[in-house]
Amino acid sequence: MGKNLTYKILERHIVSGQLKKGEEIGIKIDQTLTQDSTGTMVYLQLEAMDIKDIKTDLSVAYIDHNTLQTGFENADDHEFIKSAAAKYGIVFSKPGNGICHQLHLENFGKPGGTLIGSDSHTPTNGGLGMLSIGAGGLDVAVAMATGKYWLKMPEVLNVNLNGNLKPWVSAKDIILYILDKLTVKGGVGKVIEYSGDGIKYLSVTDRATITNMGAELGATTSIFPSDNETYEYLRSQNREGDWIELKADEDAVYDDVIDIDLGDIVPLVAKPHSPDNVDTIENIKGLKVDQVAIGSCTNSSYTDLMKVANILKGKKVHPDVSLSISPGSSKILNMLAENGALAHMISAGARVLECACGPCIGMGQAPKNDAISLRTFNRNFYGRSGTKSAHVYLVSPEVAAISAIKGYAEDPRVLGEAIDIDVPEVFKENNNLFIYPSEKRDGLKVKMGPNIKPFPINKKLKDCIEGKVVLKVDDDITTDHIMPSNASLLPYRSNIPHLSKYAFSTIDDEFWKRCEENNGGFIVGGENYGQGSSREHAALVPLYLGIKAILAKSFARIHKANLINAGIIPLEFINKEDYENIGFDDDIYIYKLRDLLIENNEIEVINKTKDIVIKCRFAGSKRDVDILMAGGYLNWVKKNFGGIDND
Amino acid sequence: MGKNLTYKILERHIVSGQLKKGEEIGIKIDQTLTQDSTGTMVYLQLEAMDIKDIKTDLSVAYIDHNTLQTGFENADDHEFIKSAAAKYGIVFSKPGNGICHQLHLENFGKPGGTLIGSDSHTPTNGGLGMLSIGAGGLDVAVAMATGKYWLKMPEVLNVNLNGNLKPWVSAKDIILYILDKLTVKGGVGKVIEYSGDGIKYLSVTDRATITNMGAELGATTSIFPSDNETYEYLRSQNREGDWIELKADEDAVYDDVIDIDLGDIVPLVAKPHSPDNVDTIENIKGLKVDQVAIGSCTNSSYTDLMKVANILKGKKVHPDVSLSISPGSSKILNMLAENGALAHMISAGARVLECACGPCIGMGQAPKNDAISLRTFNRNFYGRSGTKSAHVYLVSPEVAAISAIKGYAEDPRVLGEAIDIDVPEVFKENNNLFIYPSEKRDGLKVKMGPNIKPFPINKKLKDCIEGKVVLKVDDDITTDHIMPSNASLLPYRSNIPHLSKYAFSTIDDEFWKRCEENNGGFIVGGENYGQGSSREHAALVPLYLGIKAILAKSFARIHKANLINAGIIPLEFINKEDYENIGFDDDIYIYKLRDLLIENNEIEVINKTKDIVIKCRFAGSKRDVDILMAGGYLNWVKKNFGGIDND
Repeated sequence: MGKNLTYKILERHIVSGQLKKGEEIGIKIDQTLTQDSTGTMVYLQLEAMDIKDIKTDLSVAYIDHNTLQTGFENADDHEFIKSAAAKYGIVFSKPGNGICHQLHLENFGKPGGTLIGSDSHTPTNGGLGMLSIGAGGLDVAVAMATGKYWLKMPEVLNVNLNGNLKPWVSAKDIILYILDKLTVKGGVGKVIEYSGDGIKYLSVTDRATITNMGAELGATTSIFPSDNETYEYLRSQNREGDWIELKADEDAVYDDVIDIDLGDIVPLVAKPHSPDNVDTIENIKGLKVDQVAIGSCTNSSYTDLMKVANILKGKKVHPDVSLSISPGSSKILNMLAENGALAHMISAGARVLECACGPCIGMGQAPKNDAISLRTFNRNFYGRSGTKSAHVYLVSPEVAAISAIKGYAEDPRVLGEAIDIDVPEVFKENNNLFIYPSEKRDGLKVKMGPNIKPFPINKKLKDCIEGKVVLKVDDDITTDHIMPSNASLLPYRSNIPHLSKYAFSTIDDEFWKRCEENNGGFIVGGENYGQGSSREHAALVPLYLGIKAILAKSFARIHKANLINAGIIPLEFINKEDYENIGFDDDIYIYKLRDLLIENNEIEVINKTKDIVIKCRFAGSKRDVDILMAGGYLNWVKKNFGGIDND
Repeated sequence: MGKNLTYKILERHIVSGQLKKGEEIGIKIDQTLTQDSTGTMVYLQLEAMDIKDIKTDLSVAYIDHNTLQTGFENADDHEFIKSAAAKYGIVFSKPGNGICHQLHLENFGKPGGTLIGSDSHTPTNGGLGMLSIGAGGLDVAVAMATGKYWLKMPEVLNVNLNGNLKPWVSAKDIILYILDKLTVKGGVGKVIEYSGDGIKYLSVTDRATITNMGAELGATTSIFPSDNETYEYLRSQNREGDWIELKADEDAVYDDVIDIDLGDIVPLVAKPHSPDNVDTIENIKGLKVDQVAIGSCTNSSYTDLMKVANILKGKKVHPDVSLSISPGSSKILNMLAENGALAHMISAGARVLECACGPCIGMGQAPKNDAISLRTFNRNFYGRSGTKSAHVYLVSPEVAAISAIKGYAEDPRVLGEAIDIDVPEVFKENNNLFIYPSEKRDGLKVKMGPNIKPFPINKKLKDCIEGKVVLKVDDDITTDHIMPSNASLLPYRSNIPHLSKYAFSTIDDEFWKRCEENNGGFIVGGENYGQGSSREHAALVPLYLGIKAILAKSFARIHKANLINAGIIPLEFINKEDYENIGFDDDIYIYKLRDLLIENNEIEVINKTKDIVIKCRFAGSKRDVDILMAGGYLNWVKKNFGGIDND
C-alpha cells in the first residue's frame, strides 16, 4: 500500500502514538517561526519554562505585524523579542525585513521537514514540500523547549491538478476555485496534498499562494511535492543543498481525492465577507473601486509583483483609487528597486508601504466608509480591514493591478497577450535585516519594556483548595465576556496584570478587585462556559487573579483546554440543578483533590456557607489530569522535559 | 532708502494698512496650502462660508499627516478634502504623493508671491523667494474665500551668510547654528531675510531646509532672494517660466543684521528636548543609537536622500539600529528608484516608509522606551516621537546615515572626501498623484463620512441675551481643561458634536448635559482664562454648546481671539471682586448689548438671581466688535465679502 507525502514526512518525525487517523501523535519539530503579534506571549512562555537552549534545528522570530509603531509598545515588543532570540539562539528578523511566511520560504523552509508557527498561515511553506502547521503560541513555545508537537493524526485529502492554466489565470484563482468547491470548513481535520500533471506549471511561490490559503479551508496544512520546480526555487535562493526529492508513492492511499482541470478555471474573486464566497471577475466587472491593496503573505512574490509592475508600467492609477503595495520581503523590494519595476509602480501613483503584513491585518490603510476594496490577501472577514462598512474582495495581483488603473473591477484578460515574467536565476543576497544568534549566549537577558509583564505561572495542584465564589454567571458566557479584546486593550496583550483589570468588566467592574481582596476564588457558570474565540488570555487572566476552579454546567471545548493549560480546574456539575445550590460569596472547600482526580475524576465540593456537598466531575484525559497536577502545561513541560519543578 | 526683499513683496501685495512695523496690514494672498490634519477643519469652515469660488490664484490641499489609516477616520477625511477640493477648484494631492512643503516647492511655489498655509512649516517655500507664512486654519479658509490675510507688519532681520561650508557640513547645520545663536524665541515677530556671498553655494532645497526651520526660531517667516540658483531649480522642475529675479536693494534697511561665516560651522546636533539645545556632533560622538529616522519637510530633498544613499551603499545598518527613510515626494522616490539609490538604501537594511510626514509628527515609528533617536527632522519636543521617554536628537542627513551604520553618533567627517551629488538637469515628471480641479464644478458636493460634522456657526449678536451660569471655574483654566486633546479624542477633530461631550470633562462630567438642558448659558472664570495652546476647538465646542459669553477676571490672548472668532463674548469684570457676586446656576441677563458694545464697550450684566448689576468690559478693537456683531469671524467674512448673512 503506497504512502502519501504527508505519511512519509510524519513517519520520519513521529515520536509517540501511531499514524492512525484521529489518534494523538507526537512529532519531532525541525523548525518553528513566530510573528510579533503572537510572539511576545510565546517568548514570555519560553522564559517561564526556564530552559537554556531550544531543541529545534532552527527557530526564527519575525517582526511583521505591529510595525506601524504609533506608541512605544510595538518597539518595546520588538526589542523584547530580539533579546529573547539572542538569549535562546533564535534567528531574529528585524521590522522591515518582510512577512514571516515569505521570508521563511526564501531563507529557511526545507522539503521534508516539519515547521510549526504561531500564525495561521504557516502552511505557506507547504509550497516547498515542508509539513508546516499553524499552532497556538504555547504549542510553539513548547516545541522550542522540547522539539515536539502533539496533534491528532489528520485525514489526507488529495487534490489532483491536471492540465494548465489559461492566460491571466493564476495560483490565486486556483485556491479560490477550491474554496468555492470545499468552503471554509472543507479542510477541517485534513492535510491537503497536491499532485498531478498540472503542478509542474506552478512555481514554488504559486504553490505557496495555494498552501497559504489552505488556512481558509480550515485545513491542518497543505503540501506540494518537492520536484524540479522546488529545486529551481531553492537554487535561486542559493539553497540548492536544502533540496530533496519528495513525492507520494504512485499507489498512495488518501482519505479522499478531488480532480481539478486547471483549464476550467477563470479569473475569480471572493466577495464580502468570506473567502469562500467566490464568483467570477466577469460577474463583478464594472464595480467601482475605491481602494486596491497588493501584497500580503498570499501574493507578494517576485513574480506577483513583477506582473503588477508590468501592468502599471506607463499607466496611471485611477484618481478615485488608492493603490497600496506592500512587498513580501526586502529582498524582493530590493530586486524591484534594482530592475526598475518599483519605479514603474511609483510612477503610476502607487503608495509603496513597508515590507510587512500591513493592510492585510488591518494594520493601516483602513479604507473609507462603505469603500469597495480589492485586495490580493487571504481574508475578507467583516471588519478586518479596519473599516466595518467596507466591502473587501479577494483577487489575484493581475485583477488588482488592472482594476486600480481602470477604477472599476476589471477582467485582466482584456489586456490581451499574457505577461511572461523572467524570474532571475539567482535572487539578490540580502541578509542585512536578519540577526543570527551568537554561539556565546551566556548571561544574556531579555529586555522587557514597562508594558511587558512575565507570563503568569501556576503552582502544583494542592490537595485542598478553598475560597469564595467571586462571580456567578449565566449560560453562554463568551471569551469576550471573560477577557474583552478591543483596540484599547490590544496593545496590552503582553501585560496580563493590566488586562486583569478588565476581566468580566462588561458584567462586573469590581470582579478583579474582589479577586485581589479574596486572594482569588471560584467562578460559577452555566452552560457552554467560555464559548467564542480560542484566546488564551481568557484563561491566563483568571489564573493571574487566583481563580482556582470554575464550576459550570458545561464548558466550550477550546476554553476548557486553555483552562487546563493554565492549571485552572474546569469542574462540571453532575446534577445541573446544583447550579442553584451555590451562590455568590459562598465559601467553598474541596479536599483530597489530587487523589479524587487520579482515582475517578469525581469531586465533592463542599459549600460551607450552605452546609451542603455538591458533586462535580472533571471530564478530561489522563494527560489533562497530569497537566492539572503539575499546575498547568508549562509546569508539565518543565517536569517532563528536564525543567525545574515549580512548587 | 533701499528696500529689503520682504518690503518689496509686501508692497506688491498690500490691500490695507501701512507697511509700518507693528501696524495691522492686509495683503493679497496668491496661494494657499493645507495639510489634512488641519485641513478638514479649514474646508468645513470654507463650506460654512458658503462661497462659490476661491479667490486665490492657486490653492492646494495636501494629504501628508494622517496617512497610516488605522481606522476609517483618516480615509474619510481624505475623501472629504478631495471632494471639497473638487467643489472649490483646489488642487488635490493624494496620500502617498509626499509632504506638502516639499511638493509645493517642486510644483507650485513662485518667487515674489505670497503663500499662507495651515502648517507651521509653510515658510519652507521661502527658499524659493516666496513670502510663505504659517497661519491658523481659519485664516487659510478666509484667505481662500477673500484672497486676503491680515497680520501685524513684522520686523525684518537680515542674516548675512558669507564664505562657504566646509566638507560634510550642510544646510541643516546652518539653521542649527542660527538656532544656537537666536534660540527658539529669537525670530518672534520677525521675517528672517537671508543674503550674502555665501548663499550662491546653497541650492534651493538647502535654502528650504533653512527657511523650514525658521519656524523653530518662532519667526513669522524666512526668505531667500530669487537668483540663479532659484532659476536652476525651477528649470529642473520644468517651471523656469515661474522665475523672476528678486533681491533686496544694495542699501536695504533692516531692523537688525547678523553676519555669519559659513566656514565657522561644524556638524551640529540639537539635543533633547529643544531645537535650540545645540551642540557639536564631536561632543556627542559615540552615543549609542537605537533609531535613526531620515526624511520630513526639513531634509528629504533629492540631494539629501542621494547623500544618504551614497553613505549607505554597500554598507549595513547596525543590528541594534532601526533606520527609517520617508522620502519627501513621490517624484524624488521615483528618481531614487530609477537611479538605483533606493536599492542601496534597501540593501543596507533601511525601512523605506511612505512619502509622508510619518515619524516626524509621531505618526508611526515611535521608538522603544528610553531610546536614543537621531532624526533629520525639525522638532525634538518632549513626547513628539510618540514615546515620552525617548531622547530625540536633530541632525543632518549625513550624520544620520553614518550613525545608522556605526550604531552610535558619528561625525561624518570621518568619511573623508566629501560626496558630490550630481543633481539631474531635469527632474522626472510625476503628476499621477495630483488631481487638478475641473472647469465644470457645478453641483459638486462635499462627501462627509459619519465622523465629519459641519462647522458650528453662530448667529448675529442679539441685543438681549440671557441664561444660566452653567459653570464657574477658578484661575488659570487651560485650553486642555476646556477641550481635552488626547489620542482617543484626536480622530474627532472634525466632529465638534462628539468632542462637545468632553468639554471641561476633567472638571465636570455633566457640563455638556447642562448646556444641552439649558440651551447654553454663561461661564464664569478667574484670571488667565484659556491659557495654553492655540486650539480653536476650545472656542468652537462652547459655541456648539450654546455658550453666549464668558465672564472672567482676565483672558489669555489667543483664546480670547478664538472666542471672538467664534462669536462668544469675552467679558472682563471691571471690579475683579465681582467674581464673588456671580455663582453657579445664577440667572444672567444682558440688555442693549449691541449698543453698549458699539458705544463704550462697557456692559451691565444683571444677576437676576442675586438681583445685582455687575459691570464688565469688552476689551477689543473696532474690528473685534464688528466680528462679534456679525456672530463670529465666518459671518463677518460672509457679510464683508459677499456671502450670505446668517440671521
